[in-house]
Amino acid sequence: MADDAVTIGVDYGTLSGRALVVRVRDGAELGTAVHPYEHAVMDTVLSAHRDEQLPPDWALQVPQDYINVLKHAVPAALAEAGVSPHQVVGIGTDFTACTMIPVLKDGTPLNELPHFADRPHAYVKLWKHHAAQGQADRLNELAHQRGEGWIRRYGGFISSEWEFAKGLQLLEEDPEIYAVMDHWVEAADWIVWQLTGRYTKNACTAGYKAIYQDGAYPSPEFLAELNPEFAEFVQDKVDHPIAPLGGHAGSLTTEAAQWTGLPEGIAVAVGNVDAHVTAPAANAVEPGQMVAIMGTSTCHVMNGERLSEVPGMCGAVDGGITEGLWGYEAGQSGVGDIFAWYVKNQVPHDYAQEAQNAELSLHELLTLKSQDQPVGGHGLIALDWHSGNRSVLVDHELSGLVVGQTLATAPEDIYRALLEATAFGTRTIIEAFNDSGVPVRELVVAGGLLKNTFLMQTYADVTNLPISTITSDQGPALGSAIHAAVAAGVYEDVRAAGRVMGGRTSDAYTPDPERVEQYNALYAEYKRLHDYFGRGDNDIMRRLKAIRRQAYAQEAHTS
Amino acid sequence: MADDAVTIGVDYGTLSGRALVVRVRDGAELGTAVHPYEHAVMDTVLSAHRDEQLPPDWALQVPQDYINVLKHAVPAALAEAGVSPHQVVGIGTDFTACTMIPVLKDGTPLNELPHFADRPHAYVKLWKHHAAQGQADRLNELAHQRGEGWIRRYGGFISSEWEFAKGLQLLEEDPEIYAVMDHWVEAADWIVWQLTGRYTKNACTAGYKAIYQDGAYPSPEFLAELNPEFAEFVQDKVDHPIAPLGGHAGSLTTEAAQWTGLPEGIAVAVGNVDAHVTAPAANAVEPGQMVAIMGTSTCHVMNGERLSEVPGMCGAVDGGITEGLWGYEAGQSGVGDIFAWYVKNQVPHDYAQEAQNAELSLHELLTLKSQDQPVGGHGLIALDWHSGNRSVLVDHELSGLVVGQTLATAPEDIYRALLEATAFGTRTIIEAFNDSGVPVRELVVAGGLLKNTFLMQTYADVTNLPISTITSDQGPALGSAIHAAVAAGVYEDVRAAGRVMGGRTSDAYTPDPERVEQYNALYAEYKRLHDYFGRGDNDIMRRLKAIRRQAYAQEAHTS
Repeated sequence: MADDAVTIGVDYGTLSGRALVVRVRDGAELGTAVHPYEHAVMDTVLSAHRDEQLPPDWALQVPQDYINVLKHAVPAALAEAGVSPHQVVGIGTDFTACTMIPVLKDGTPLNELPHFADRPHAYVKLWKHHAAQGQADRLNELAHQRGEGWIRRYGGFISSEWEFAKGLQLLEEDPEIYAVMDHWVEAADWIVWQLTGRYTKNACTAGYKAIYQDGAYPSPEFLAELNPEFAEFVQDKVDHPIAPLGGHAGSLTTEAAQWTGLPEGIAVAVGNVDAHVTAPAANAVEPGQMVAIMGTSTCHVMNGERLSEVPGMCGAVDGGITEGLWGYEAGQSGVGDIFAWYVKNQVPHDYAQEAQNAELSLHELLTLKSQDQPVGGHGLIALDWHSGNRSVLVDHELSGLVVGQTLATAPEDIYRALLEATAFGTRTIIEAFNDSGVPVRELVVAGGLLKNTFLMQTYADVTNLPISTITSDQGPALGSAIHAAVAAGVYEDVRAAGRVMGGRTSDAYTPDPERVEQYNALYAEYKRLHDYFGRGDNDIMRRLKAIRRQAYAQEAHTS
Repeated sequence: MADDAVTIGVDYGTLSGRALVVRVRDGAELGTAVHPYEHAVMDTVLSAHRDEQLPPDWALQVPQDYINVLKHAVPAALAEAGVSPHQVVGIGTDFTACTMIPVLKDGTPLNELPHFADRPHAYVKLWKHHAAQGQADRLNELAHQRGEGWIRRYGGFISSEWEFAKGLQLLEEDPEIYAVMDHWVEAADWIVWQLTGRYTKNACTAGYKAIYQDGAYPSPEFLAELNPEFAEFVQDKVDHPIAPLGGHAGSLTTEAAQWTGLPEGIAVAVGNVDAHVTAPAANAVEPGQMVAIMGTSTCHVMNGERLSEVPGMCGAVDGGITEGLWGYEAGQSGVGDIFAWYVKNQVPHDYAQEAQNAELSLHELLTLKSQDQPVGGHGLIALDWHSGNRSVLVDHELSGLVVGQTLATAPEDIYRALLEATAFGTRTIIEAFNDSGVPVRELVVAGGLLKNTFLMQTYADVTNLPISTITSDQGPALGSAIHAAVAAGVYEDVRAAGRVMGGRTSDAYTPDPERVEQYNALYAEYKRLHDYFGRGDNDIMRRLKAIRRQAYAQEAHTS
């Protein structure tokens, strides 16, 4: 390998894609560029086609927007790096998941067929498409009723975000699209298909999102009981050979070389998921190192030596993060999203002016105003379920809650309570792991939220764990570049590449014993509300969502 | 009586006093004026003395501010009315309650003694002074333990806002002031004392706030068990002959005539409470007519033929509203206050601009944005306890709650949920009355909030009752003028005077049967949260307040 060899990591996020140029000998990040998706997230109207109205809880995307990232962000990153395309030895990608595309045999997305352009079900169902909750509920109920062994690998719950729930929704709501679809493909694999010209299915999403366990998917008998038309779903739409993470998926095609300006024939890594590639980027793939990627949502990934079944986790997958270890995943569906919602909707005029005068963001202002309060000083507890709960309750019908408001409650009080609520959510997940024999020893934080030092200290105090922070500002893209280096044969495996190219700051935050004690009292309150509203004592959140849907359905019917 | 005879009603509110000139032959309102209290409410610092810090939950006032209302508002109202002082045949007053003043034998408030000016306990304890909750808790526990009969007259709870809790706090926190105090006087009676030169105790506050039932106060034995030093509280500080409502308290003194510009010697009515005088102002003193005075808080008053014990009501008092009937009172400690808190603290910048551009208040904008939603469309339920709960739980340690937020929740959604929460609170009170054999047949609304027509329709739909609205914009002041007319001998009694001088619009709002059904479902959710958080299943609200107090006490101690 030439001393100046680089790989490209491309990280596909919720709203944009980022390309990063990384030197393989030391992980130096030489240049980067971002390209936003033209259609962003279509969650109220189908902006790709005449702005048609979408029902609640939908979230769609347009596949061509992903190709445009290759066309714009990759050349721009190379230019910023001042690197010649001939130095590039490989490209790797990571994606949001579970993000699903219905395609023809040749990979053409169905929304690109002109007669399907007006059909919402022909588009990409983004990870946060939550309209398949009814299907997920049936799937879970049946799995427990039949005693399916695989359900325990997912903490007892299959999410409405995943392949089978979304696929069943597609079948039941638009059977014509379902019939025409040849493959139900993860975007993570579709993009690699576009780069290499052939379909390769990665072990990560197959295990975490497609219920692939011990070499098999859910059986045709199980699927037929859900819906007779769904019996052959696996055989007809899902099944495909599976490739290990860090593997070589193929070589860059002529067309993809034209899009990107990269040399034809370079190595393309097997597809992967944003959270999972971040673990080697932080050089944190040892058992007990929980990596939390904290952004709009938080994803937790951790390797373990053995298989254990943790209640409410998102999945345990053999080789799901690093080939040779059991990969565990958990998540919080709303974190930065909740803070952003609060700042946009619940912070008054005079605060906006104060922030502007002080040249601060509202997030910074609210943090400054609340960070010196004693623990418990605001008298509030919040539940962080504005976007549902992914772990450990796995229920997207749950919603947010704030308790304790008085006429003296200030905007920054509730903001801080929301920050703390997400820390309590993380603690709930960590305790589920600890209680299941998969102990968490270190919390390694990546993602945009690590810039809020008060938030980080709060997580240390609430979890009573030392917090390490990833060195790179571009964890997922760096992780993809690491996988590209392995695919290109520069390193033997992802662990070895991560040791050289990844990195973290250990003990960046350590728990304060007094605040740990104080937060224990507040966490006990959180836990009690969590169990009361989340475990069936009072299903008000589900009922309010049902009332809401019915109210709007009735209104649409009568108007 | 001369055909152009008038009386003056003076209404003492939380932040200001209002004088109203009313023609006695027909209730025509000829002129009015308001004078704000110079020290407003002292709830964070003792602004009357060097801005010394006050503990949480305190609320004090300065008696001289009340005298200044007589000096400024009365002459201004006469001037506006174009009425000669010689036409005035009487003056009546009403006050917030329970608002307590410690005084010497001659009525001098203790804060006017220079050596006590720096002592918070020497000042007026305003109705919403909530720092005596600990004393109220002990009082309630002991009353139930001893099986005191009077506790049932108050729905089983004595409020921290009332005379005995506030008096016990005074004894225990500043015994020197307590020892010097000759009378513990309701502001409602103190102002009449200033007008007539003699102390007259009114039947209304004696019954509702001073636990005077069947001719007796709580016994010395009971009081001694609370605190041995408190045994003679009634005999030493409280007991005094009681005068009926609408009675003649005395004649205007020379000094008070100078303050007001009114003729010396005219009739002064016995003191009364703002809510209670409003019933005759709306000509709504018949059994089954519940008058709700809706402002920052809501007070409900209703007459009944017989005595019944309603759980959680504020009190049942013989002649407490109208001589000859049993007066029932209930209340919601926060209503308009909660809406105002929300608008000030939780409505974003762009809404403020939109309101300004449209020349609307934020209340109007939020109402406009939310009023056309179908019932339940926002998916939220709130508890209206930001200022505690007066009825039916009688617990000022309770606090607010909102459940159901998602990332799609808009500011107007939560605003509407708060409006609805107060309607649910009213329904809870009405149901307690209905269930106790004191049926409510008509809801008569007075107070500032009746201007929000959407709110009024919501109350009709939630309570499934027709709503009448008071005709006068100045209900309490008109009610005081009615009492003045009775004191002056123009009418035989308050009922007769109310028929001529008061008035209401019947059936201003009627329930919509479909919305009544829809709100029944939401009310069931409210009720369940109400009972869970309010009746001891989960005392999180109390614990959060205790944690908050401890956090700040600890901080003060360590800093």
